[in-house]
Amino acid sequence: MVTLCFISLYAFIEVSVFKQDTKQLLLNVRLDAVIVWQDPELKWNTTVYPYDQVVLPVNKIWTPEFYVTNALVTNMKHASRDLLVFSNGTLKHQVSVTAQVSCEVNLFNYPFAADDCPVAIESWASDDCGTQLELGHMTPIDGSHGDWQTDAVQLLKQGEGRNYIWVSLSIKPSNPFITLLLPSVLILLADVGSFALPLTGGERNSFKVTLVLSFTMFLNILSEQLPGDGQCSPIIRIHFCICLVLLVLSMLVSMILTRVAHDGGLLMCCCFGGSASKTTKNKKVDDENKPDISVVQLNDSEENQTLRKVRHFLDGLDEKEVENERRQKIAHVLDRIFFWIYFICTTGYFIGMLYVMARYTCIVNHFDFWL
Amino acid sequence: MVTLCFISLYAFIEVSVFKQDTKQLLLNVRLDAVIVWQDPELKWNTTVYPYDQVVLPVNKIWTPEFYVTNALVTNMKHASRDLLVFSNGTLKHQVSVTAQVSCEVNLFNYPFAADDCPVAIESWASDDCGTQLELGHMTPIDGSHGDWQTDAVQLLKQGEGRNYIWVSLSIKPSNPFITLLLPSVLILLADVGSFALPLTGGERNSFKVTLVLSFTMFLNILSEQLPGDGQCSPIIRIHFCICLVLLVLSMLVSMILTRVAHDGGLLMCCCFGGSASKTTKNKKVDDENKPDISVVQLNDSEENQTLRKVRHFLDGLDEKEVENERRQKIAHVLDRIFFWIYFICTTGYFIGMLYVMARYTCIVNHFDFWL
Amino acid sequence: MVTLCFISLYAFIEVSVFKQDTKQLLLNVRLDAVIVWQDPELKWNTTVYPYDQVVLPVNKIWTPEFYVTNALVTNMKHASRDLLVFSNGTLKHQVSVTAQVSCEVNLFNYPFAADDCPVAIESWASDDCGTQLELGHMTPIDGSHGDWQTDAVQLLKQGEGRNYIWVSLSIKPSNPFITLLLPSVLILLADVGSFALPLTGGERNSFKVTLVLSFTMFLNILSEQLPGDGQCSPIIRIHFCICLVLLVLSMLVSMILTRVAHDGGLLMCCCFGGSASKTTKNKKVDDENKPDISVVQLNDSEENQTLRKVRHFLDGLDEKEVENERRQKIAHVLDRIFFWIYFICTTGYFIGMLYVMARYTCIVNHFDFWL
Amino acid sequence: MVTLCFISLYAFIEVSVFKQDTKQLLLNVRLDAVIVWQDPELKWNTTVYPYDQVVLPVNKIWTPEFYVTNALVTNMKHASRDLLVFSNGTLKHQVSVTAQVSCEVNLFNYPFAADDCPVAIESWASDDCGTQLELGHMTPIDGSHGDWQTDAVQLLKQGEGRNYIWVSLSIKPSNPFITLLLPSVLILLADVGSFALPLTGGERNSFKVTLVLSFTMFLNILSEQLPGDGQCSPIIRIHFCICLVLLVLSMLVSMILTRVAHDGGLLMCCCFGGSASKTTKNKKVDDENKPDISVVQLNDSEENQTLRKVRHFLDGLDEKEVENERRQKIAHVLDRIFFWIYFICTTGYFIGMLYVMARYTCIVNHFDFWL
Amino acid sequence: MVTLCFISLYAFIEVSVFKQDTKQLLLNVRLDAVIVWQDPELKWNTTVYPYDQVVLPVNKIWTPEFYVTNALVTNMKHASRDLLVFSNGTLKHQVSVTAQVSCEVNLFNYPFAADDCPVAIESWASDDCGTQLELGHMTPIDGSHGDWQTDAVQLLKQGEGRNYIWVSLSIKPSNPFITLLLPSVLILLADVGSFALPLTGGERNSFKVTLVLSFTMFLNILSEQLPGDGQCSPIIRIHFCICLVLLVLSMLVSMILTRVAHDGGLLMCCCFGGSASKTTKNKKVDDENKPDISVVQLNDSEENQTLRKVRHFLDGLDEKEVENERRQKIAHVLDRIFFWIYFICTTGYFIGMLYVMARYTCIVNHFDFWL
Repeated sequence: MVTLCFISLYAFIEVSVFKQDTKQLLLNVRLDAVIVWQDPELKWNTTVYPYDQVVLPVNKIWTPEFYVTNALVTNMKHASRDLLVFSNGTLKHQVSVTAQVSCEVNLFNYPFAADDCPVAIESWASDDCGTQLELGHMTPIDGSHGDWQTDAVQLLKQGEGRNYIWVSLSIKPSNPFITLLLPSVLILLADVGSFALPLTGGERNSFKVTLVLSFTMFLNILSEQLPGDGQCSPIIRIHFCICLVLLVLSMLVSMILTRVAHDGGLLMCCCFGGSASKTTKNKKVDDENKPDISVVQLNDSEENQTLRKVRHFLDGLDEKEVENERRQKIAHVLDRIFFWIYFICTTGYFIGMLYVMARYTCIVNHFDFWL
Repeated sequence: MVTLCFISLYAFIEVSVFKQDTKQLLLNVRLDAVIVWQDPELKWNTTVYPYDQVVLPVNKIWTPEFYVTNALVTNMKHASRDLLVFSNGTLKHQVSVTAQVSCEVNLFNYPFAADDCPVAIESWASDDCGTQLELGHMTPIDGSHGDWQTDAVQLLKQGEGRNYIWVSLSIKPSNPFITLLLPSVLILLADVGSFALPLTGGERNSFKVTLVLSFTMFLNILSEQLPGDGQCSPIIRIHFCICLVLLVLSMLVSMILTRVAHDGGLLMCCCFGGSASKTTKNKKVDDENKPDISVVQLNDSEENQTLRKVRHFLDGLDEKEVENERRQKIAHVLDRIFFWIYFICTTGYFIGMLYVMARYTCIVNHFDFWL
Repeated sequence: MVTLCFISLYAFIEVSVFKQDTKQLLLNVRLDAVIVWQDPELKWNTTVYPYDQVVLPVNKIWTPEFYVTNALVTNMKHASRDLLVFSNGTLKHQVSVTAQVSCEVNLFNYPFAADDCPVAIESWASDDCGTQLELGHMTPIDGSHGDWQTDAVQLLKQGEGRNYIWVSLSIKPSNPFITLLLPSVLILLADVGSFALPLTGGERNSFKVTLVLSFTMFLNILSEQLPGDGQCSPIIRIHFCICLVLLVLSMLVSMILTRVAHDGGLLMCCCFGGSASKTTKNKKVDDENKPDISVVQLNDSEENQTLRKVRHFLDGLDEKEVENERRQKIAHVLDRIFFWIYFICTTGYFIGMLYVMARYTCIVNHFDFWL
Repeated sequence: MVTLCFISLYAFIEVSVFKQDTKQLLLNVRLDAVIVWQDPELKWNTTVYPYDQVVLPVNKIWTPEFYVTNALVTNMKHASRDLLVFSNGTLKHQVSVTAQVSCEVNLFNYPFAADDCPVAIESWASDDCGTQLELGHMTPIDGSHGDWQTDAVQLLKQGEGRNYIWVSLSIKPSNPFITLLLPSVLILLADVGSFALPLTGGERNSFKVTLVLSFTMFLNILSEQLPGDGQCSPIIRIHFCICLVLLVLSMLVSMILTRVAHDGGLLMCCCFGGSASKTTKNKKVDDENKPDISVVQLNDSEENQTLRKVRHFLDGLDEKEVENERRQKIAHVLDRIFFWIYFICTTGYFIGMLYVMARYTCIVNHFDFWL
Repeated sequence: MVTLCFISLYAFIEVSVFKQDTKQLLLNVRLDAVIVWQDPELKWNTTVYPYDQVVLPVNKIWTPEFYVTNALVTNMKHASRDLLVFSNGTLKHQVSVTAQVSCEVNLFNYPFAADDCPVAIESWASDDCGTQLELGHMTPIDGSHGDWQTDAVQLLKQGEGRNYIWVSLSIKPSNPFITLLLPSVLILLADVGSFALPLTGGERNSFKVTLVLSFTMFLNILSEQLPGDGQCSPIIRIHFCICLVLLVLSMLVSMILTRVAHDGGLLMCCCFGGSASKTTKNKKVDDENKPDISVVQLNDSEENQTLRKVRHFLDGLDEKEVENERRQKIAHVLDRIFFWIYFICTTGYFIGMLYVMARYTCIVNHFDFWL
């Protein structure tokens, strides 16, 4: 039952990358390997036992093992319970290794992210003993149906016997584009468009509240879909926060301008409110005083009294209208100024953000498991 | 314990397809097989041991294995711990293979999609040794209760010993119809109907915002239900995006026309706003000037002054009304023009999309696991 | 180690039905069985070995097995690692079988559905060999805490040795009643009640949109809770679709009537809009012309001119009001007619649907696993 | 390998109750036990083999088992692969039993519910053979971090050898209080407060719809959080249903009163609508007739004609206003009456419900597994 | 197969903390250890068997075990099926221990929480026998990608042989900041900003309802994300409750002030409503009476009658306006007073809460598993 040191092991591997999870950054890999090795104790003389090859049950003889070094969970199973032994002591066996690799992927440019992920393969070795793995050809099988697609799978080496499979991944952008980007761009477009709504009708404010709440909803969806903060956390998260702040700012300004259009100012509103009611009171007092005078005017007919009332009424209306128009004009002008500031800032910000998203590349060290 | 090469194996299979997942495109299959094979070492002479058949525990003797080649996970279990051995060396055993097949299904015409999925069955074979599988009759058992229904299950062969079960699947359309199609069609219908609402009341805009937000919600539900982008990703996703863009466009136009109805134009609004307030100011100045003149007119009674005020007031009202009516007429005409353009484009688009959905068939190669 | 054919097996079963899932129609059953059988090889002479009974470890001797035939997953475990053997060769053992039965349940009358589900119990038998199961008494234990309650559990037989446990299930209606039925009935009641809101204020339309969107939300919840389309899919799904269509219809009619109340018609709106503005224009022209004439009328005082203006203004107001009232009256009458049609149709439909729900019973063949 | 009957077993147990689920009423318990028993076959003479104690691998010798009788799933694992044997045949071993107990808990007074749950411990015994369990001291370890907290854990006995651990549980009310109670109370408060909104503005109705829809949302959350209907289903569910019905009732009454304020009645609306338009028509006819008469009146100046028009106009306005005020007064009075009825009923209902919640205790038989 | 007591064990550990869950407070730890120990029975004479080291299958010889004492689930697996034995009896082996530690973390200052968590490592020992664990150097590997980040990992000792790994954790605040804090702060900001909206338009109330409902939504999200009430439950939960109460209070006050602006008071509304309609009635009666008097005034022309009507009408309008203005002024002043009270209280509360959050530290005893 004693096995000698230094077994040479040839493996021919089929790699299937079949499930990735954006949130947890896990990469499920299955390696179907045909392994070939020598066991001198299982050699026989074909003259004595006249068979060239023999099938043996796998649980009765020693078989080599290999692992995915950087996997959270690695599981090697025999693909069959039988094993082929040749008369010269060569053994041929099929194993299936499933591994779950936690891969720190650069998600900085999230819906258009692409990165590589190494799957390090090692066989057991301790001190001077162990098995020496020699990888033959590798056949990648595309089994991915999730949010990521496997662009390329290559077999590489790093220094002394450190084999790894280099899996190039890229996000399929259509799903997050529809769920996240398209609605958010449309919400911002609607926010810019909402400046076309009249300021005073109350319509614009309720419109903007709805937009803010919808955007908040998107932030929640985003938080559920995006991974936690790693080294290269997606810039889209910060971008969305800034968008939300912009929306709330635009809503607050719109509310304040409504007040300005209504009261003629925000800080002056106390004084104005007072003076406005004072003038009405004065007018009232006028009305009270005038009749006293009209008593003196003997010939003042009832008709004249009525007409004076009509005139005062129309004057009041006119005065109010002029006052209103003045206030609304101020609000209108402020609204226009804010619109252009908002429009220029937002556009500028968008161009800057696009530049950062397109140009900046965040580099992740994928080999931190090999110290 | 040594088993010779080339065991012939007869299998009688019951296939149950009992769970499919739209999102992950997984097909859970259970094969309950009765397998029959010859083991010359287990033959006995009935004259010596006078029994025709004997029950043996399954873990003491060699049993053949078979796999589902294109499965992510395949698991063969003995259906019982006992096994029947006949005196002529024939063995009869029941096994149960559960496999999870990842099948690339054509989902192009999504809520009405139908496609086929092969379940390849192979037994262990290496070089010249192994077991040769010969499939007897197959009995399909319909065990599916999910979103897919199994239309047909057939046993087919492809070339040398490559047996596969050909499972024809089709989506039960009633569930996605109720969740996705019916509400989305009703939302678009409500959007067309919302043109009946008066433009200026503010009702139409808030109505359209609600529709846009509801549709966004449907996009989220859709993204949760639909699979990622494979070869034949569902056209309904692109269709929904276009619908959303149409809704937002219709909302933006509606908002701009509200502005037109209010200010008489979108670009000219600065000038108009100025002139409008100028005329009021002029009128005011007129009012201020006229009394000066009326002082000259000695006989001008107070009554006349009042009447002039009334006339001016009514003139102002009339003027404003005419101005308003002119603006609203422009907006009304533009609204009607846009409605017909929108209606024709939407209808045309729908007919085109239906044609593409009905006619185009996307073909998927299901045998990419056999290179 | 050789076991002879035809072992007789007595089982005393405790059945616990402890978890059912509405969506997947799975029934988790646990059978705790005391099984008794004869093994002539384990008999001993009490004179030689003076013990009447002996405890043996269960993994050293042969034990019979039994299965749930129609289960997706069936799992038999020894309840203890020890086993009682009597000196006459009788063995007594406890096993625990957990099975997940996929049961096609009649869900036609969904929140009040009730159906039966067989749990077929068989022991291993092949050709003439095997164990013959004889079921003793059965004790049902109610362990269900889910949406279904177990009404009755009986032990029945079908033909030659086919034992099955007949589990009668019924849905506890209180949970879906609160989640689905109560809110949907209240939404429809609110829709009927919303006809009390004034047509022109804009309130009714926004109210109805809210109702339609809430109902859409319920359809989504329903789709998540209800199972896929089996043989007897719940009628409540079609019922909810019809309700949604009714709500949308009522909303669209309400929107069109708003237009009628505003413009006097839906198709005639172009002409009306034109004529309305024409009359105002005519009036305007009149105003322009009359002063020319009044210039001829030498004695026409300024006062008369003003009075004419006032009269024209009041005439215009009156005319408009009459026109408005005419339109609103038409809309009002149409609204009332539609309300009664809608009310009668909805009520009639509800009565019909209740009749179908109460009377129609959909029959499911539960024994399709026994061909 | 033969074990004799009647092994005495001493167990010192550490109980950790570490996970409970409100929805499924499952109680996860872990028992870490030190068990001590005698095995006369493992005795040795210390003079021959001069060691007092020896460590043996656990899978080579017989070990006793014990179960949680009322568990859905019970799983006993050896805490270590080694075992201590003393020279007098005493064995000392550590085992770890994890059990999932389905416990019917009294949830009648839900967010403040508290109940007890027995965890019955038994060792294997059949007929006269088996092990007799004697429990030593028990140490509870509080490992619960879920919605329930463990108040007390005691070791009790019921009759002949039936040991059970009596776990006293109580819900931590802060989480459901924040999620369910606080928002629902605030919604009802807002509903009572919404009577302060003016009836006719349309604001109150839209406010009440929003409240009804929010409350529906809470019902859905409640249904997801609360368990199915057991013996003592939470009264809060019925309470919430009644609250929803109250909200809808208040909304419907508010809508009908809006109609009353608008049309003067709900049933009389046809007649009123007709008469209202008749009077306007009459007035119109009057206007048409009067000029004819005024033609007869030769001296009737144009001025008088105008003045009559003004008078008629003002009369019409006055009449309408009086009519409106009359209607609104009726609606106002009805609104006030309904408010007080609603307020008194709601308050009374709340007091009654609180009394039932505080006083009524629903008793559950926890020992239905011991028949 | 007998192992003697007191084996000394050296372990060199690699610690990966790779998954934490905020809700359940679980810490998944993987320890990859190289262990070295002496087994005198596996010593050999290199002169007889001339090899210095030999590879043995791990399942044929005794291997030591170690556990994570405070883990819910601990699972030790051999990292390979082979093991290195040196001729002097030293054994070298690699094991992998995965443990799920339930750790009571101080979450008082939630989105900025940081705490430590011990992972106690012990090897099996009973009475005087067992293995004595001596930990060598430890290499932490940062494998965490969740909401928590591992700040430091140290190896510490507590008293006699109690080794533990001290894992310092801190929450990555960016995710909860975006999901919870940012929207909640923006909602409160919007609530303060909503005081800029005019009181009477109805806009402010609907705005505030929307805010309250959004905040309720956040409470639900919070409850799903935060853990149950442990010793140091997050203060943010209570904070959010107070915020919700503040929002509802502000909404209720806003509704009541709307009533005040409309009716002139809340309690006085019955009297006012009565008197208001009385004055109109009086006026009406006046109108009815005056004509009677005017019959007496023979010369009272029709014109005068009309003018009187106009005067009365204008008086009525004026009176109403004055009344309205008076009421609105009261409401306005109350609104301003409440705004300042609300603003000061909210700001004060926020400062106080920030102080408590920043200063107070809740201390958790992490060693309650070692009694």
